[in-house]
Amino acid sequence: MKMYKDMNHEELVSLHDDLCKQYEQVKAKGLKLNMARGKPDVNQLLLSTDILDVINSHYDFGSQYEYCNYGILDGIDEAKEFFAKMLNTSSQNVIVYGNSSLTIMFDQISRGYTHGYLGEKPWCQLDKVKFLCPVPGYDRHFAITEHFGIEMINIPMNENGPDMDLIEKYVETDESIKGIWCVPQYSNPTGITYSDEVVERFAHLNPAAKDFRIFWDNAYLVHHLYNDKQEHVKNLIKACQEAGQPNLVFEFCSTSKVTLPGSGVAALATSLENKEDILKHMSIQCIGYDKLNQLRHVEYFNKIESIDTHMQKQASLLKPKFEAVLNIFERELEPLGIAEWTKPLGGYFISFMAMENCAKAIVQKCKEAGTLLTTAGATYPYGQDPHDANIRIAPSFPKLEELKQATELFVLCVKLISVEKLLEKA
Amino acid sequence: MKMYKDMNHEELVSLHDDLCKQYEQVKAKGLKLNMARGKPDVNQLLLSTDILDVINSHYDFGSQYEYCNYGILDGIDEAKEFFAKMLNTSSQNVIVYGNSSLTIMFDQISRGYTHGYLGEKPWCQLDKVKFLCPVPGYDRHFAITEHFGIEMINIPMNENGPDMDLIEKYVETDESIKGIWCVPQYSNPTGITYSDEVVERFAHLNPAAKDFRIFWDNAYLVHHLYNDKQEHVKNLIKACQEAGQPNLVFEFCSTSKVTLPGSGVAALATSLENKEDILKHMSIQCIGYDKLNQLRHVEYFNKIESIDTHMQKQASLLKPKFEAVLNIFERELEPLGIAEWTKPLGGYFISFMAMENCAKAIVQKCKEAGTLLTTAGATYPYGQDPHDANIRIAPSFPKLEELKQATELFVLCVKLISVEKLLEKA
Repeated sequence: MKMYKDMNHEELVSLHDDLCKQYEQVKAKGLKLNMARGKPDVNQLLLSTDILDVINSHYDFGSQYEYCNYGILDGIDEAKEFFAKMLNTSSQNVIVYGNSSLTIMFDQISRGYTHGYLGEKPWCQLDKVKFLCPVPGYDRHFAITEHFGIEMINIPMNENGPDMDLIEKYVETDESIKGIWCVPQYSNPTGITYSDEVVERFAHLNPAAKDFRIFWDNAYLVHHLYNDKQEHVKNLIKACQEAGQPNLVFEFCSTSKVTLPGSGVAALATSLENKEDILKHMSIQCIGYDKLNQLRHVEYFNKIESIDTHMQKQASLLKPKFEAVLNIFERELEPLGIAEWTKPLGGYFISFMAMENCAKAIVQKCKEAGTLLTTAGATYPYGQDPHDANIRIAPSFPKLEELKQATELFVLCVKLISVEKLLEKA
Repeated sequence: MKMYKDMNHEELVSLHDDLCKQYEQVKAKGLKLNMARGKPDVNQLLLSTDILDVINSHYDFGSQYEYCNYGILDGIDEAKEFFAKMLNTSSQNVIVYGNSSLTIMFDQISRGYTHGYLGEKPWCQLDKVKFLCPVPGYDRHFAITEHFGIEMINIPMNENGPDMDLIEKYVETDESIKGIWCVPQYSNPTGITYSDEVVERFAHLNPAAKDFRIFWDNAYLVHHLYNDKQEHVKNLIKACQEAGQPNLVFEFCSTSKVTLPGSGVAALATSLENKEDILKHMSIQCIGYDKLNQLRHVEYFNKIESIDTHMQKQASLLKPKFEAVLNIFERELEPLGIAEWTKPLGGYFISFMAMENCAKAIVQKCKEAGTLLTTAGATYPYGQDPHDANIRIAPSFPKLEELKQATELFVLCVKLISVEKLLEKA
């Protein structure tokens, strides 16, 4: 196979004709596939339905009937310990919530906006509030900051994490920068895990704003694809403690992609001072979260199976899907020099970089042939990818055979749009 | 028995000596009782533990595995229908959330503060925002408005609901008044149900502020104590529709005191336009609430037992407690002319009116002898009861025998403090 850039006009035109024919053939099949979101498939859900048996009417609550009643604002002790172990921190630093870490993040931003952190001015009283956004990143993070009118600044990602030189420059000189969104392990969508050096530089930031916080969304901390090739991001809570800046970080995680996504449990870990500040606000908002669902999770992972075993089962379902996509990419695209993509060891996504100004057209072309991808641009603040090149691939939800079909269509669209772009240029 | 006001100084002094001795005797018992909050007791919790069996690993999800996954922001259809029936409205008007109606109310206030309703200015951008607060009322409502710096104005309650003349005067002339807190059926703490006329006058309010809303916390809508003496507040959502002002009301309810308080399901009902406005905000905040807990509740009340039967069981546990308190009040206090109290047909509270400037001292006196009551003043905004007279009695949580002990202590403290007050005056 020839690299597209080495083809002459005639070759490109002929290739284009050929690809158009192939596209029309696939389109005629009337596919209806969805690779848009990082949702587990039914078989992954079935791995966890046993959890629904753990707390039943015969469960021995002993003296703990208060778990069925109002109260216990920061979560039951067993759940705090469970998440503390998962996050490698102390249970004192943990608050256990309801089913959604996204909601916790929203609440933290909202609290900064309406009340401010640790006595600092509420952001709604400031002229300008900014957040740093490593890109490509998670669209729902960006949606929260945009919702509160917070200006977002793109920070490029490299293979070790976000560009720390740039972050230090911004955070240490600009008081209006109040936070940064990070998915530090198996990052959404690049799959990258931040290096130890990056984590240390985060812990040693010297922010101009007292209320600057690192929003450390450790969504994929146990979501390894391979048993023998695991990445583990360095513990930022501990690093911040050791750097004498314990208040610098809010860490988030949940069991959403561990057990049942809609019915999981989410948690936050932070310094004791931040926790106290948060609980003051929470005590107005809530009497207590669903403690039986917290207990359900703890009992399941204490008595039925370990997190490690459970996540290996998840991996055994996810791995063939990631590999199917990557194999097709390698076979069909590697020799052509028109795209790059990540080969993650965990998480839920493959990050695909097309040629400049091609991503929107590729996603649109896939859609017209019945396959939904994450909207091009969604991985950037305001939905604006300055290069219009990044596409987030989410292999988990479709069945394996459908995923292969969708990926074949995708690579076809990548080729087609790339050729069109090259013909335009010529 | 003689009315205290008819006693001369000598009689009062002698009575005081006698009451002091009685008090010291009770204090010596070292009681440790709690009548502070409207919490169900263990036997009430046991009425509902069967609900934990309904959704298990053998449950036939059929094609509805999406109930275990992300998504379905406004709640599963079955749950919307369940609450629509309970609230006598259409399921289109309902959003089903997580475990706490308090959190929904907090979110509504927070949304008004940060983003505003239906395109109106966010409250954080206004110089002054005020809420009307029928008093005595629910302390957690007042805590939310206070948290957002909203000025609260007391509105006296009478036997038909809040003083509508005063409400109309405020709402129709003052644009800074953005809402009112109401518990319209078996009100917290007075037990009063708003009359049809009051509901109609609410529906026909002509607010100066376009974003004025009635926060209609229908917390006790199925919480009748007697089968043959039930009160049902008129449907405000319908009344507002008929009055051509569908956007005027947010109605809240939950299963917290129906099934298990910490693990219930909460809902909001409102106009379609308000609902759309809310969902825009929610879509940033959350991917979906715990749909399995929603399903658990629907299946329980569809297949195991009806809400009516279930609430009759709850009533059979609560009624003896309410009657025990009321009997002691009647026997010990009725003849003395030093207090008044409500005799509710539902809900969770008895509202007790002591002589002026006595409530704080009574609650303190009870505390010193080992019995915790709701803080005096808590039923008023800012914790300030202008007459220092109201005390909220919550009979549900203690065991019946303990409740009787606590109530005997309470009436003793009422007598003692009342005599002291009369001696001071003389």
